[in-house]
Amino acid sequence: MRKLKIAQFGLGPIGLETLNLAATKPWAEIVGAIDFDAAKVGKDLGTLTSIKRLRGLKVCRSLDELLQKAKPQIVFHTTVSRFKLAFEQLEPIARRGLNVVSSCEELIFPQLLQPNSATRLDRLCRANGARIVAAGVNPGFVMDLLPLCMTGICREVRAVHVQRVVDAATRREPLQRKIGSGLPRNEFQRRLKAGQAGHAGLKESLALLAHGLGWKLEGISETGKAVIAQQDIRTQYLHVKKGQTCGLHQRAEARIRGKLRLSLDLKMFLNAPDPHDALQIEGDPPLDMVINGGVAGDQATVAALVNTAPRLLKASPGLLLPTDLLVPRFG
Amino acid sequence: MRKLKIAQFGLGPIGLETLNLAATKPWAEIVGAIDFDAAKVGKDLGTLTSIKRLRGLKVCRSLDELLQKAKPQIVFHTTVSRFKLAFEQLEPIARRGLNVVSSCEELIFPQLLQPNSATRLDRLCRANGARIVAAGVNPGFVMDLLPLCMTGICREVRAVHVQRVVDAATRREPLQRKIGSGLPRNEFQRRLKAGQAGHAGLKESLALLAHGLGWKLEGISETGKAVIAQQDIRTQYLHVKKGQTCGLHQRAEARIRGKLRLSLDLKMFLNAPDPHDALQIEGDPPLDMVINGGVAGDQATVAALVNTAPRLLKASPGLLLPTDLLVPRFG
Repeated sequence: MRKLKIAQFGLGPIGLETLNLAATKPWAEIVGAIDFDAAKVGKDLGTLTSIKRLRGLKVCRSLDELLQKAKPQIVFHTTVSRFKLAFEQLEPIARRGLNVVSSCEELIFPQLLQPNSATRLDRLCRANGARIVAAGVNPGFVMDLLPLCMTGICREVRAVHVQRVVDAATRREPLQRKIGSGLPRNEFQRRLKAGQAGHAGLKESLALLAHGLGWKLEGISETGKAVIAQQDIRTQYLHVKKGQTCGLHQRAEARIRGKLRLSLDLKMFLNAPDPHDALQIEGDPPLDMVINGGVAGDQATVAALVNTAPRLLKASPGLLLPTDLLVPRFG
Repeated sequence: MRKLKIAQFGLGPIGLETLNLAATKPWAEIVGAIDFDAAKVGKDLGTLTSIKRLRGLKVCRSLDELLQKAKPQIVFHTTVSRFKLAFEQLEPIARRGLNVVSSCEELIFPQLLQPNSATRLDRLCRANGARIVAAGVNPGFVMDLLPLCMTGICREVRAVHVQRVVDAATRREPLQRKIGSGLPRNEFQRRLKAGQAGHAGLKESLALLAHGLGWKLEGISETGKAVIAQQDIRTQYLHVKKGQTCGLHQRAEARIRGKLRLSLDLKMFLNAPDPHDALQIEGDPPLDMVINGGVAGDQATVAALVNTAPRLLKASPGLLLPTDLLVPRFG
């Protein structure tokens, strides 16, 4: 078996775990990594990851530097949540005809916020034989791809509702901070309203669902509010006082001619009881599904990124949606 | 939009419902049907289905007769459960370069029982630009494709266990008879043992799962036993006395080096309590999923067949597995 040459773009916690997992795959050969952080540039990948056979590979400061040393076929891209920022990083990768699996949340359906940039990137991919797709758990699976899979056995779909409840106390520190833990209620509410805080990709999940079902939406509404600690909460990483923010409740909805057709409801807060993912399809047959305990985000996100790579190469070039790929599976 | 020309092969209850559903799709144009039953040959499809615009289309007795009148691109094939029997019907269709979505249970993984026939059919498909795939709910979704989808977010998969409990009293008469309802316990047990009764496709679901995970099995064991009525049961169609068979409990398992790695457990009996589909993945992350009430078989099977057609045409020619197609979805 010819191995796929892999590079990692972004060496935060998710990027490092992606490298660690990719290195275990018989089809993968790690050939390099990029990070913009001066503290990481030049560091030895063998040291950063503790994978001995990566010793001698130094972190590059740019794509150009990496390409002078290696010819990756797939780039795992784990740097930003916003497509606007990702675009500038992905554009030169597409120009070189490389393939990308990205954790960028808005890239799950980039046509929603930046349709022109999406079209440009898609053309560039097609012209150069590159493939770009986003993958993950949320967005990327539990609130979009999995519900779509389930509609494959429906004669009729009238509405799709998904709820995700995450106990953020069991998650890594950046997530605990992202959901506003420890901030005064008003401060987090202000940031949510200004689009400076909150979970990225919820609207995009909904747009992907609608696109997959062939539904023309009249618009998407999204609301977000702080969840307030009812008592002091101490996690491995931080201490939240009663009355401070301990998480968020975010919701995206779409109606067609006044009727609620799609709803995605996301609660992520410290010590959230009964964490789970749930799905109801109003249709024929109706479907009522629950993942008890929910899907743990980080490990599963890393798995989704790595498992997507072999399937990405079987797709035609372009800026792709998860629905443009073969059935997901461990690989 | 150019419509896909559709023909129906087999006009039993599932075949007729497939036609009814396909006729509602904007991408489909029904051009004819085949059945071997002399009582159906020559009948008007408009009468058989109550779809007015099919009036004037007569049921053909053979593929040759159909092809003299119409040029279908897709054939929905709903005649038999055994690949051995399906092969003779599919071989001439492949030779003509047509595409097939079939409900044939063993066709979900035909390599298991008839690897040589599967290879022959695959070559024939490739040589003539034909595509053949099976679809359905079980096999085809709840015990194979859906579990595989879920492994797409796993870093590691150690074992996959699926349970399906069907209350057969809510299902159509042929299914109630298929599971032995009303037979003496010993008689059904004898038929099960002789392979003359039972649910077809369970071993194939397990083989598809193993194939999708890249696992080499040392063998598959399958057991089946009668479920006995604890009291008299009366359904819409039949009357089962206490002590007679009222359904079956079938189970397929695979071990690797002595360890149970895959198990599919199927209970279908009259008045089965708490019908559901459940899935546990032992892995990282572990996953524990339940479809409350389960997936109602017939309507969902028909939906799976019809929804598969648009995705089939995007695949390369061959005798395909469900995992060779794009992500399932309503379409």
